[in-house]
Amino acid sequence: MTDIAKGLEGVLFTESKLTFINGSEGILTHLGIPIQEWAEKSTFEELSLALLDAELPTAEELARFDAQLRANRAVADSVLDVIRGMPRGVHPMQALRTAVSYLGLTDPEAEEITPEARRAISVRLIAQFATLIAAINRTQEGQDIVAPRTDLTHAGNFLYMLTGKEPTPEQARLFDIALILHADHGMNASTFTAIATSSTLSDMYSCITSAVGALKGPLHGGANEAVMDMLDEVGTPDKAEAYISAKLDNKEKIMGVGHRVYKNFDPRSRVLRDYAEQVANKEGKSNYYQILETIEKTVVDRIGSKGIYPNVDFYSGTVYSDLGIKKEYFTPIFALARISGWCASVIEYSQNNRLLRPDAVYTGLEGQHYSDLKDRS
Amino acid sequence: MTDIAKGLEGVLFTESKLTFINGSEGILTHLGIPIQEWAEKSTFEELSLALLDAELPTAEELARFDAQLRANRAVADSVLDVIRGMPRGVHPMQALRTAVSYLGLTDPEAEEITPEARRAISVRLIAQFATLIAAINRTQEGQDIVAPRTDLTHAGNFLYMLTGKEPTPEQARLFDIALILHADHGMNASTFTAIATSSTLSDMYSCITSAVGALKGPLHGGANEAVMDMLDEVGTPDKAEAYISAKLDNKEKIMGVGHRVYKNFDPRSRVLRDYAEQVANKEGKSNYYQILETIEKTVVDRIGSKGIYPNVDFYSGTVYSDLGIKKEYFTPIFALARISGWCASVIEYSQNNRLLRPDAVYTGLEGQHYSDLKDRS
Repeated sequence: MTDIAKGLEGVLFTESKLTFINGSEGILTHLGIPIQEWAEKSTFEELSLALLDAELPTAEELARFDAQLRANRAVADSVLDVIRGMPRGVHPMQALRTAVSYLGLTDPEAEEITPEARRAISVRLIAQFATLIAAINRTQEGQDIVAPRTDLTHAGNFLYMLTGKEPTPEQARLFDIALILHADHGMNASTFTAIATSSTLSDMYSCITSAVGALKGPLHGGANEAVMDMLDEVGTPDKAEAYISAKLDNKEKIMGVGHRVYKNFDPRSRVLRDYAEQVANKEGKSNYYQILETIEKTVVDRIGSKGIYPNVDFYSGTVYSDLGIKKEYFTPIFALARISGWCASVIEYSQNNRLLRPDAVYTGLEGQHYSDLKDRS
Repeated sequence: MTDIAKGLEGVLFTESKLTFINGSEGILTHLGIPIQEWAEKSTFEELSLALLDAELPTAEELARFDAQLRANRAVADSVLDVIRGMPRGVHPMQALRTAVSYLGLTDPEAEEITPEARRAISVRLIAQFATLIAAINRTQEGQDIVAPRTDLTHAGNFLYMLTGKEPTPEQARLFDIALILHADHGMNASTFTAIATSSTLSDMYSCITSAVGALKGPLHGGANEAVMDMLDEVGTPDKAEAYISAKLDNKEKIMGVGHRVYKNFDPRSRVLRDYAEQVANKEGKSNYYQILETIEKTVVDRIGSKGIYPNVDFYSGTVYSDLGIKKEYFTPIFALARISGWCASVIEYSQNNRLLRPDAVYTGLEGQHYSDLKDRS
């Protein structure tokens, strides 16, 4: 029997200095710094820059990067026209995949694959992903596109473009933290697909278009949308305990609980939970938030001792929903954060590129010959 | 030291019944049947169907499939409008990536991932790739789009849509053979990227969009374009021998000679060579064809004994060029053929899906803490 590495699980194919994950101990670091510190002390802009350059920026470097992001928020009118012309009711990730592919057609530097060009394109992609996603959401809802503002943070400007209303500083910061928590997560399937694309020395827009397509799949990007489906199914906070208890009694899977990588706890979930609680205490607890609290308590009481806790998707869905984001847009929001990890990973891999060409075990017929069509039955 | 499988070379990640390659012996089979027999006796339509269903079709099944392809050649006007609206001078593969992504927005079945839906979408994709590529070529050249005809073969209709002129039966058959020879080639980087995308249970349009992006890279799809660059550099047939002799004397790489997989000979090149010769003898030898003949003779005379022969890219470039295809469109033509292998491979992998998630060796910093921006130098 030939050994098959199904899902390539455990196969090491490259080196990386960006992200370290220890699932059993619940550790996630970027550049050696725990995710909790990034979330509490940094911004999405700073983490993005740190990932792109694989080092902590100076204050001056960060200020320059932030200014570049702000200056690059607008996209060409032709891209907005294509977004406006899309049929209504399409999957937002299909729309995003198409929009970012089209965006490449408007970038005169799109074909350049030097490290400098890849980095410059990454800055534009990070800035403009927000604009594309907000524009898709608004046009799909039949609303006018809201032009970006340069006086808001990346997170704040996105919420502004999405809702047409300037968010409170707390809301903007809560969303900023959610972006930080999702910015990179090692060799997940979408990052790997971006790298597979870049391994042929293809361009950045091709890499990111591929990554969007991979993230779109329900085994990857759809988890927090599934949490919201569950909260919708529960309906009201008073029904939450009975709903979850029944699921646990029947040993059914509960969305947003447990994680393939994090066997004990998800280091990202605690941070988001705490900040979400602060905002909820200040602005009032939404229906979703109250359901979430009850489910969390029930889960922790009943199976917390087995090391099964709510993961980051459990909280992010409620956070996004309370910020006015519809659940169909949770996966694009995931992309809005992960774009930094995708770009950084492609840049890193490109510096030591090797064409990806694994192999399959052939299990088909041998020694056949073409037979005339009339002789086949 | 941790073992790193660079490029995933030699890593077996799945089983496949479609294609078998033995590089050292120059063997390529689909469903166990040598590529030479497919090229000589079959059609691109038949091979596509055989790959999709992983079995030889009956005459009735093939007739039905062929009718479906013909019936599905036209694409929605909105897709053609997007193609018409693309900036001039864009990379044809960027245009194709965007067009096929947009095509997904117009397919009501796009989100379906059942085996039946994946197969039905594949039929449309195979049929419509020809329409998209021809439309991109024509609009980029400032010409009107030529609507597909249903009375021509897949190969013949493509040449008709591209040039606006019905090809001779010999030309159509020569192009058909070229498509057969490129329809599938095991776990190459673009097929692998399509599978990586599908492994998250993403949709067919995402998979194919990813594959187009991966094929676009010069390490993968650009080889026969590079052959034409060489022929252009040679200029006229009388200069070919001196040009190649000088390259061989200096031990320089000659485009289209030798192959990463086929160490002795490329089983696809002989078939294409022979048929191209027949057509050239009948229709007159082009300048390119004469240069090619001289280069081939020089290469075989001087290094043929080392087992280094012209590969399929060496002949296909000239064949395409003589059929009126510009070299910038050779990679889209590659996609036009490989779409069948991509779709078939995704369908096959989906039947036994496993999320692809390899890992990287972490070589970055450890035990770091976030430092205040003002404390950094």
